[in-house]
Amino acid sequence: MSSFRKIAVLGAGAWGTALANAAARAGREVVLWEFDEKQANALIKERVNTLYLPGVKLADEVTPAADIHAIAGCDAALMVVPAQHMRATAALAAPHLKKDVPVISCAKGIERGSLSFMSQILRATLPHNPACALSGPSFAADVAHGLPAAVTLAAKDEWLAADLSRALASPVLRLYHSDDVIGVEIGGAAKNVIAIGAGIAAGVGLGQSAGAAFIARGFAELRRFGSALGGKPETLMGLSGLGDLVLTATSPQSRNFSYGVAIGKGASPDGKLAEGAFTAQALVELAQKNHVEMPIATAVRDVLDGKITVSQAIETLLARPLTSEE
Amino acid sequence: MSSFRKIAVLGAGAWGTALANAAARAGREVVLWEFDEKQANALIKERVNTLYLPGVKLADEVTPAADIHAIAGCDAALMVVPAQHMRATAALAAPHLKKDVPVISCAKGIERGSLSFMSQILRATLPHNPACALSGPSFAADVAHGLPAAVTLAAKDEWLAADLSRALASPVLRLYHSDDVIGVEIGGAAKNVIAIGAGIAAGVGLGQSAGAAFIARGFAELRRFGSALGGKPETLMGLSGLGDLVLTATSPQSRNFSYGVAIGKGASPDGKLAEGAFTAQALVELAQKNHVEMPIATAVRDVLDGKITVSQAIETLLARPLTSEE
Repeated sequence: MSSFRKIAVLGAGAWGTALANAAARAGREVVLWEFDEKQANALIKERVNTLYLPGVKLADEVTPAADIHAIAGCDAALMVVPAQHMRATAALAAPHLKKDVPVISCAKGIERGSLSFMSQILRATLPHNPACALSGPSFAADVAHGLPAAVTLAAKDEWLAADLSRALASPVLRLYHSDDVIGVEIGGAAKNVIAIGAGIAAGVGLGQSAGAAFIARGFAELRRFGSALGGKPETLMGLSGLGDLVLTATSPQSRNFSYGVAIGKGASPDGKLAEGAFTAQALVELAQKNHVEMPIATAVRDVLDGKITVSQAIETLLARPLTSEE
Repeated sequence: MSSFRKIAVLGAGAWGTALANAAARAGREVVLWEFDEKQANALIKERVNTLYLPGVKLADEVTPAADIHAIAGCDAALMVVPAQHMRATAALAAPHLKKDVPVISCAKGIERGSLSFMSQILRATLPHNPACALSGPSFAADVAHGLPAAVTLAAKDEWLAADLSRALASPVLRLYHSDDVIGVEIGGAAKNVIAIGAGIAAGVGLGQSAGAAFIARGFAELRRFGSALGGKPETLMGLSGLGDLVLTATSPQSRNFSYGVAIGKGASPDGKLAEGAFTAQALVELAQKNHVEMPIATAVRDVLDGKITVSQAIETLLARPLTSEE
């Protein structure tokens, strides 16, 4: 039925590896390309991603590759690299992608400097390939271990989104389709920053009641930001918005939440795996440009930049005047 | 400033006891009445609620009482009894409440049979007292131990809601005010049922990704139900709706979630402390009456009634067709 026979997955982190296996489970032939040659060669040799997804064998239908030429002839490309590497990866892939082959961002974040969402980067770099976005509440480990997850896949052309969803769906990974590309991206970008804040609150020891209030207030920021940028309300309240925020801001499995917890406890953790640490500044800049108030995101950015202390941030947020909601 | 000198708290469960201490901390004089005479007398003697909130001393300004006459002369009454006991408690209090003294439901649920919300019961039983509602993400233990929490207090007259909020607020308990009484009640009623479902999914071992998707889909049900009944979107997305759902559906501290976890693991737990077990049937009936689809709530009700097994429920929910969101 599906015309998506061969799928290229660019980036063999935890999520890229899990998605490659999920696509194989959905009946696709998969090329899993990795920029880091050493890691790609280890994958080719061992067929296990010992670095990011230990204990999970690559499906037989997945062919790891160190050479970008291997993606040639693919019918769709999943871009699963960190947000700040999306532009370079798209440029690297460009010569090997046929016209009209859809490229699907699976990264969550905003590019620093340009303040671009991933789909905007893809459209600029690959103008002849439809730019799509896949996002939702999904830990790579859950999907890799066969636990069910549901995500949203968006393309401007909803028929394409529906076709791609069918091509990638399996009992383990359910895909809902949407035509709201920017809406799907907004949740993924904003939630990591809010999750760092929720982690800081938890690390300080504020308790779960305050944590839930924090998430509700954080969601209000995400919605305000999202609707100012043209995201649809049902997208922001769906899997890629609310669902992903809830997962990321409540679970110690989330790198962004854990990063915040460590900061809240007074440590100076290494944030290189916490996407929100890279996106915070861009998110706040973009919010200001669009005249959206985001006090939580701003406080997180200020803590990360060392402009205010953790206790100053908590005080600012808790001391906001008692008003009606919104 | 405040005209609310003396506050009556009816019901000395965990939340009633925590609210009594919070009101005392806000500068009020508090009478904490309890229907169960043995428990009331233990409170009078020991000044600790060893049964429901062990280790937390009553504040000096809190006077426990076994006699309902003790609430006479109060300037506001917090009704903190189980939802199914609200009508009887309001009737018992009626002769002792002056006209115009606000009565504030702090219970979460729908009365079986009548399908009434708590404010509707209060209005029917105490027609000369403004019916208010207080709800939000707040574990009694958090508030009792001085961890911050934020809730919403609603009255038809928003000035009254604002006055009451100021009278009860302290650094530990922040109150946002609202004029959307039914909206505030809807979250509290629906979330317990959805939380049982989230618990069942967790108990079965579905993982946190599926749990977050479940919460996002459950929130869609809560919103559909709430807006059909006249709740405002901002209330449903606020502390008493989304916030409370997130807390209840992610934390093992929640009795409703834990009750669901036990069911998911194949046990037949005692549900007498899980409000959602009492409200499920009423919620589904009310949804049907208002032509609102609530597949998650219906599945939970059916599992509790023994109409379907846990695996049938999970199958039904996971096998829903792949569609666009909403």
